Amino acid sequence: MTEDELINSYPHKHLLGIEGLLPTSINFLLKSSNNYVDYLNNKKNGKLDILKNKICINLFFENSTRTRTSFELAGKKLGADMLNISVGTSSIKKGETLIDTAMTLNAMQPDILVVRHHDAGAVKLLSEKVNCGVINAGDGPHEHPTQALLDALTILKRKKKISGLKIAICGDIMHSRVARSNIHLLNTLGAEVRVIAPATLIPKGIESLGVNIFYDMKSGLKDVDIIIMLRLQLERMSGSFVPSIREYFRFYGLDREKLNFANPDALILHPGPMNRGVEIDSELADDIDRSAIFEQVQMGVAVRMACLKAIIDHKLKAND
Amino acid sequence: MTEDELINSYPHKHLLGIEGLLPTSINFLLKSSNNYVDYLNNKKNGKLDILKNKICINLFFENSTRTRTSFELAGKKLGADMLNISVGTSSIKKGETLIDTAMTLNAMQPDILVVRHHDAGAVKLLSEKVNCGVINAGDGPHEHPTQALLDALTILKRKKKISGLKIAICGDIMHSRVARSNIHLLNTLGAEVRVIAPATLIPKGIESLGVNIFYDMKSGLKDVDIIIMLRLQLERMSGSFVPSIREYFRFYGLDREKLNFANPDALILHPGPMNRGVEIDSELADDIDRSAIFEQVQMGVAVRMACLKAIIDHKLKAND
Amino acid sequence: MTEDELINSYPHKHLLGIEGLLPTSINFLLKSSNNYVDYLNNKKNGKLDILKNKICINLFFENSTRTRTSFELAGKKLGADMLNISVGTSSIKKGETLIDTAMTLNAMQPDILVVRHHDAGAVKLLSEKVNCGVINAGDGPHEHPTQALLDALTILKRKKKISGLKIAICGDIMHSRVARSNIHLLNTLGAEVRVIAPATLIPKGIESLGVNIFYDMKSGLKDVDIIIMLRLQLERMSGSFVPSIREYFRFYGLDREKLNFANPDALILHPGPMNRGVEIDSELADDIDRSAIFEQVQMGVAVRMACLKAIIDHKLKAND
Repeated sequence: MTEDELINSYPHKHLLGIEGLLPTSINFLLKSSNNYVDYLNNKKNGKLDILKNKICINLFFENSTRTRTSFELAGKKLGADMLNISVGTSSIKKGETLIDTAMTLNAMQPDILVVRHHDAGAVKLLSEKVNCGVINAGDGPHEHPTQALLDALTILKRKKKISGLKIAICGDIMHSRVARSNIHLLNTLGAEVRVIAPATLIPKGIESLGVNIFYDMKSGLKDVDIIIMLRLQLERMSGSFVPSIREYFRFYGLDREKLNFANPDALILHPGPMNRGVEIDSELADDIDRSAIFEQVQMGVAVRMACLKAIIDHKLKAND
Repeated sequence: MTEDELINSYPHKHLLGIEGLLPTSINFLLKSSNNYVDYLNNKKNGKLDILKNKICINLFFENSTRTRTSFELAGKKLGADMLNISVGTSSIKKGETLIDTAMTLNAMQPDILVVRHHDAGAVKLLSEKVNCGVINAGDGPHEHPTQALLDALTILKRKKKISGLKIAICGDIMHSRVARSNIHLLNTLGAEVRVIAPATLIPKGIESLGVNIFYDMKSGLKDVDIIIMLRLQLERMSGSFVPSIREYFRFYGLDREKLNFANPDALILHPGPMNRGVEIDSELADDIDRSAIFEQVQMGVAVRMACLKAIIDHKLKAND
Repeated sequence: MTEDELINSYPHKHLLGIEGLLPTSINFLLKSSNNYVDYLNNKKNGKLDILKNKICINLFFENSTRTRTSFELAGKKLGADMLNISVGTSSIKKGETLIDTAMTLNAMQPDILVVRHHDAGAVKLLSEKVNCGVINAGDGPHEHPTQALLDALTILKRKKKISGLKIAICGDIMHSRVARSNIHLLNTLGAEVRVIAPATLIPKGIESLGVNIFYDMKSGLKDVDIIIMLRLQLERMSGSFVPSIREYFRFYGLDREKLNFANPDALILHPGPMNRGVEIDSELADDIDRSAIFEQVQMGVAVRMACLKAIIDHKLKAND
């Protein structure tokens, strides 16, 4: 592949994670996403026919309203036929293996599979068994690449750059695929990434990904440009990870007081759905000068359009 | 707005309820619906492109097969891309607020949201937070405007008028959004509306909406032209609202004997799903000379096409 | 109807089962399906417009990922608008009868209903109440005609004929609509059909359908050309049908040793989802020389395209 092709295309069959992607690939996807943001903002624009006649299956082993809807909208905007399959607990009880489910869908000859699964690595395993392109829409605590891309696009839109920014990711790092994908992406593009969390929510060895660890919000937030708050999954509350919601909010919830330690123009991101009053102060979440939470959702549709297009383009080239 | 525009368009951004609509707006929607009935009855007619390139999201916080399917069909007949989101109890447990769900979907830039919610007022609250047009597909015991419109259209088709008709609404008035929307619509168009129910199922102050109250079917049905039977939600049975199904049917279920008190050509409506043998005699429900129950469903698709078109037309005009 | 028409069309309004179909009708559907296999295999082919402007509703009273998805894909490939309705236990609790559900959907004027129901005969009952064409996607232990057609097409592709083949259907014959539809189809086209199962899983009087019964895999599989393994529904395990999974696999699970009693080129089919290690050895299921399990899925989309087209063509002719 020539350098020119590397810069002007996505060179993989699948999008399984951010880890291992070259900066050129990430930049290509972000540039393409940005074009779609402009496209979507012009209300006179209708649907495109880039995915016309293409079949894209949303295969979700975990419930998700926002990511599933975002992919469905993105696909429809590109003219694709979108199918939703949600494999709940009842179907898994039927005893079919993940691989058999994958091979069954593969035999129906779809063009793209968008897959969410509760186990790390499940989407990669599945991608090895099918002919079509696969996009990881979140696999356990492992990766959620389109979320990291939409976070990066949101930052780019507001800060005009990523390289050199100081970025803090705060909260349940341990169980977060959003954290993992963001760390890979932001490091690859030259940001300085920190994680802030109680020791119980910091996974062992995380520093090997190139992040600095802080156990205290005030020192962690000092001078940062971007704060990515993570959702605290309330089911963690019953375990030994977190003492109580009130205590969690007091020490790790983002409020005006803690925000004052960051740069005066620091921007707040959150992947949603938010627990207001748990990981983020409600009034702060709604402050459109500081919070880009709903911009992220808007970027999400554009990013998924770019990713779907990248996978189809690669497939068409491979078939040439 | 000129009088001409009032007569020839729907002058609101949303359709949240019948209460407060001018007769001209209701008549405009009914006339437009009637055109779609003719359109649908001609099997040679295909899809329209009135909503081509438009995204319409069915956002249902309560289960509904019939209303959701009716809107989905209506949208597809107009060429829209329809997305279904059904927010079950499990998703609500994730802790996201209604407003955040609304703002998240809003950030995905749909054109119309069709919303059903179990709480009165929830759809209006949501409509205040989004940019797109919102249609209320039923909010708790409050309003269900498209049901009232389809009931009115069914009556118009059979009786050629609404003004001056005597119309009885029978059954669980207390918990019925169908009753409330129908009372507003039928009163606005000049019908004489009665409600018939046991005292436990009559909400306080209902007479202020301009209805006469009857606790007895025989006197309530006397000389009426239209009988709208309501579904008795079986979960009410376990409370203190109704003594037993058998007793309820004996006093408030519609059968031939009670029907004889109405006008000889009185027409029976029911919003469905029916409990045969509870609120209506099964044989009577199937008598196509007396019952228009399945005609109502057919009118429903046409009415929803008219409402979707009205909301889009308003939006296009606002963007001019 | 002329002989020529019989050979070149499907002469029924519905497809409710294989029982009673003439060989010409079955062959017509198989020939049409085969054309769609070629069509789908050519990646340059897009969507067809045979069902453009047509509304097809997938009405599933039982969960099914594979059959529902297969019909949805088939319909979309033909240009139809597909709607999914899944009627779970909660909706049935609402108390609406099957007939009322059918008549409600009928009033929405769809073109085709694809119906799965847990009771034998329910789909036929429903078909008698609606105006549109109905395809049975499985009714209790009764029939699953598109599965039998796709099995036949898979056999034809590999063996170039059905007449004269020795075919064994093995496993839970008692509860299997797949077995019943296959017996009818394969007998009609001149195969010699055997069933193999423990006595507890053989329904009384099955020999009247024209099959030989074997209680032992080794004698049953002797000299057969095709082996159709059935899914053992794990809930049967808790009853008195089967002593244990280990024992079931030992006596009735297909492995290399038992396979050796069949013809050297015997082909293995399974309707899926498979229980690996219960009714079939896992390694054997993946042996593409012996097993056509994922080919069956591919044939399934083509067969459903042919069936949808046949029903629409019949309807258009009837409307002439």
